[in-house]
Parts: sequence; C-alpha cells; structure tokens
Amino acid sequence: MKIGILGYGNLGKGVEQAIRYNKDMELAGVFTRRDPSTIATITKNIPVYHIDSAKNMTNQIDVMILCVGSMSDMPELGPVFASMFNTVDGYDNHAQIPGYFDTMNKSALESGKVSIISSGWDPGMFSINRMYADAILPEGNTYTFWGKGISQGHSNAIRRIKGVKDATQYTIPMENAIEAVRRGDMPVLTAGEKHRRECFVVAEEGADKTWIENEIKTMPDYFSEYKTEVHFITEEELKENHSKLPHGGLVIRYGKTGFDGQNNHRIEYKLSLNSNPEFTANVLVAFARAAYRLNREGVSGAKTVIDIAPAYLSNKSGEQLRRELI
Amino acid sequence: MKIGILGYGNLGKGVEQAIRYNKDMELAGVFTRRDPSTIATITKNIPVYHIDSAKNMTNQIDVMILCVGSMSDMPELGPVFASMFNTVDGYDNHAQIPGYFDTMNKSALESGKVSIISSGWDPGMFSINRMYADAILPEGNTYTFWGKGISQGHSNAIRRIKGVKDATQYTIPMENAIEAVRRGDMPVLTAGEKHRRECFVVAEEGADKTWIENEIKTMPDYFSEYKTEVHFITEEELKENHSKLPHGGLVIRYGKTGFDGQNNHRIEYKLSLNSNPEFTANVLVAFARAAYRLNREGVSGAKTVIDIAPAYLSNKSGEQLRRELI
Repeated sequence: MKIGILGYGNLGKGVEQAIRYNKDMELAGVFTRRDPSTIATITKNIPVYHIDSAKNMTNQIDVMILCVGSMSDMPELGPVFASMFNTVDGYDNHAQIPGYFDTMNKSALESGKVSIISSGWDPGMFSINRMYADAILPEGNTYTFWGKGISQGHSNAIRRIKGVKDATQYTIPMENAIEAVRRGDMPVLTAGEKHRRECFVVAEEGADKTWIENEIKTMPDYFSEYKTEVHFITEEELKENHSKLPHGGLVIRYGKTGFDGQNNHRIEYKLSLNSNPEFTANVLVAFARAAYRLNREGVSGAKTVIDIAPAYLSNKSGEQLRRELI
Repeated sequence: MKIGILGYGNLGKGVEQAIRYNKDMELAGVFTRRDPSTIATITKNIPVYHIDSAKNMTNQIDVMILCVGSMSDMPELGPVFASMFNTVDGYDNHAQIPGYFDTMNKSALESGKVSIISSGWDPGMFSINRMYADAILPEGNTYTFWGKGISQGHSNAIRRIKGVKDATQYTIPMENAIEAVRRGDMPVLTAGEKHRRECFVVAEEGADKTWIENEIKTMPDYFSEYKTEVHFITEEELKENHSKLPHGGLVIRYGKTGFDGQNNHRIEYKLSLNSNPEFTANVLVAFARAAYRLNREGVSGAKTVIDIAPAYLSNKSGEQLRRELI
C-alpha cells in the first residue's frame, strides 16, 4: 500500500523510517507547506510535494498519515484531508477528541474514506489498554503515569522565560504513588502526587539564575503544583545529555472480583521508549494498514483505536496469527 | 443479555461472580453433566439444568460461556454448542487452536452464531498484546513469562507420584532472564532458562521423600529441564498457605526503530492475579458482550480475541469511551 506523509517534522521522519520495516508498504511522497526543494528526506529518492499538490494525487496515495501539530494544524487540515484520503493521525488534545471525531467522521463519511484519529501511544495504545482493563475489571480504578520522558510543552514553557537560552524538562512518575496503586490503596491522586518535574536549563550569560528558578517553580499549571527540580547546565551538556526524545509511561488498573470482592488483580501496560516520535510513528503506520484494509472492505467514517480489531494492524494472515501469536 | 454457563467448576463459578459486576447481563442458568440437584450455586435462585436441556433453550440464552476442560471436553462440546448458541470459551491447548478454530467456525457459520474461542489471559489478553506489539515493532523479539503462579497441570503430575498425598506447584519466572530481555540482549531462551519450579508436597506416612523428590526432579517435560525445588510440608500447611489460585505473567517485546535501528523500545504487559479462574472468567464475560453484539449486527462464525474491536467489550457507549478513556 502507498503511504503519504503530511508534515515533515520529527513525527513525519519517524513515519518515513517506520515504513522501511513494513514490507507491504511504500512511501509514495512527503507533503509539506514549506518549499519542497528545501526538504531533504532521510531516505534517498523520496518525492517531496507541496501540500497543494495533494488534491491531484488522490489515486496515488492509499493512506495519508497526518504528522502536523494537534494544536492548530490538525483541526484545520484533518477534515480537508479526510475528504480526499484515508487518513491516520495522532491527534492528542484529549479534551477536544470528541469534537474532532465528529468533524472527521462527517468528512470521511462524505468521501467514503476511513479516518483513524488519536492513534499513537497516549492517546493510542494507552487508550486501548485503559479500555480493555476497564471492561475486564468493571470494579476498580485505572491510573495513568507518564515518563520518565521529555515533555516538549514544558520544555517550551521554560524556554519562553527571560534569560533562558535553552531547556529540557523531564516528567518523572512518583514511585511512591505507583507503589500505592500496586498495593491496592486505590488512592485519589492529584497531578502533583503522580509526577515530579526535572528541568535542565541553559541560562544566558549574566542572567539571574535564582529569578529563573523561581519563575519556573511558580509557573501555574505547568510547574507550581509539582515537586520541581531545576539544574543549570552548559549548552554543551544539554546537547550531549538531553537532546534525545525518550518517553514512556504506565497504565495500571487495580480491580476486584469474587462474590464479595475478595480477590484483587493488577493489569499493567508499560512503555519504555528511546524515541517518542519514532515509536508514535510506528503505531500510526500499523493503524495505516488497518485504515487501508477497512476501506477496501467498504467501511468509511472516523474510527478511534478501540474501534479497530487488533488483527487489522498486522501484515500476517489470520491463519498465521492463530498459529504463532494466539 | 442472558448468559448461560456450561460446566460449574472454578471457572464456571468465576463467571457466575463476574456477571454480578456487569449490570447489562443476567445469569440465565448453569448447565451441567452432573445431577442438577447436587449443584448449589454461590448466588441464590440460579436455575441449574442438565446439559441435555440446553437444546430446548436456544431462545432463552444469548451467549453460552463454555467452562469445561480444554483437553477433551471442549473439542467435543464446543462445536455442539456453537451449532445452537453464541459461545465464548477459553480453549487453551495452544497447538490445537488452528484446528479448533476451523471446527468452531464451520459450526458457527452453519448456525449463524458467533463463537469467540481461546479467550482468557493466555491465550487471550496475552495473545492480543503479543499481536499488537508485533505489529507496532516489526523488528524485535517477544517473550512471554508466566507466574508466579500455580500450574494445575504440574501440581497434578506430582500428585500422581506414588507416596504423594497432595501437592501444589508454582511456576516462577527467572528474574535474570527478564532483566536480559529488558536490557535488549535479545536472548534465545530455553524453557528452563525462563522459569523455575517450586513444589510443596504432602507425603503419605512412611513414604520415601528422597525418592519422591528425585521422581519429581527427573520427570521429563514437566520438571527435568527446570531448576526445581521441592519442599515437604504438612497437609495443614498446604491447606493454609497454598490453596489459593494466584497466577500472572508478563509479555515483553523489545524492538528497534530508526534508519539503522538506532532506537530501542520496550512494550510490557503484566498481570498479577489473586485468582486465576476469576480473572479468566472476567475476560470471558467481557468477550460474551462482544459475541452478543457482533451477532446482533449479523456477524457469524468463529473469532479469536484479535478479530474483535476492543470497544465491543465495553458496556459504555462509543461517545462515553471517547470522552473518558481515549
């Protein structure tokens, strides 16, 4: 199947690389709002097109993977592309997912295409695991922990402070909170009781580090309710030790069964990722296979990851899956 | 929806209790090959029928959950019940799953019903997780570890030894093997390198314990290739400390992404279960909901757990799931 990539940032590059590992797929082209001649793909000989060319290529792309930002680009471009192509995206603005689903569903039903939204790992694989665990153990609580990993949003928030040259922020789950969940305490946890934040900051020459540290630690929403550590380091150290994009996290459900709830059970799904965008891209690519297949079966409309049978993600036949993986 | 239970052992009792936690379900009856008057259900006022009555009750049961043994009962009774009811089972004879699928598929296609086979946790939730992980990280290895938990098959094998009055066997994963997988060594592991076995044995009076221990440790397939510990204890100690049915396990996939496989990732799915039959029953019950819904949509034939979209397992609406769990 022929895959198109819309947007060539970290995620788009991840998709390009993921396709190399999937023999039933071919990268048909990268689409960008920039001047295509300025884009050098990692793989040689990948055609790069201006986004405006996409509308003339609906027969040459089986699935378009949307790798643009969730904040403003996806709500605008998603429905436009769903009116032309099967699409997969990692729309991750949790609060807006129901509305985005409705918009994409309308567009995809009209075009007769399939749009899989909010794929990736959270939303995505974590959503799937929250849902399975909730259905299997109706009596219980589910907890999601993120990290240890880099939050781009928090890193950017630090970078906007006066006197900060560059910064990297790690979100780190609180081990004592995880242990309380595992023990079955069924704790009610605030955001600040679930995670702490560690910041590596490069200050501009002569900047007031005490003032910067205070600005970070008192920043509402981002840091003020969290235990936050701030380390000032050199630009070289930041580049050397904090320029990768690791992430991960843990979904735990603790639940009870039995006539009087006498037996307890834990379901845990844990991801440890060296590269957040590359792993996310791999999930998008597996769901691209599902979008293609569903559409070939005559399905259309928007779907979330929980609307899709797992087997659609695999390039192995049902027979092979039953023999090797069941 | 109205659920029937075929077979009233530990698993059947687990299903009975699971249904209490699912408000959209009702236990319509227990079916047994024994004299129904000898069966006392945990819940009051549950009708108990002889298995021969089932064929006259096809309109009163929406899904029959098959809680009979996989070894000889399921291959015989599965197709018979698939010809009359939507069914869910936990058929766990891994090597025979492809053949069992074909038999059940034929029967269910003829009756126009849905039969979900090999549900539970392994096969079942572990199968789902092996498949997702394999599809998401095509370059990598998947490892399944079981335990710490009680293996009924191994406990029974010890009980058959002369001079053994009773026994409980724990399967325990080797921590060093799990660590090697997590580190990314991609080890090739024999069965004996993945698990060790701990046996608690009650000997008959005057029995030769040295001989029994040797019989256990040298038993082919069951123990000879494993590091095995044998502890002789009293009947009271066995009853007090080893009469529950805990189990669990871990599926890990270690895989690589990136142009040259430069980034690695770990996906882990872990279960820690106080009661193996009750958790298994909860999975069967969630898949019973899926069988009922699929059949109402006009679907028929055999399905495995990977053929079913996760959302079919939940009693929450698509809208609620998108709002709360995605």
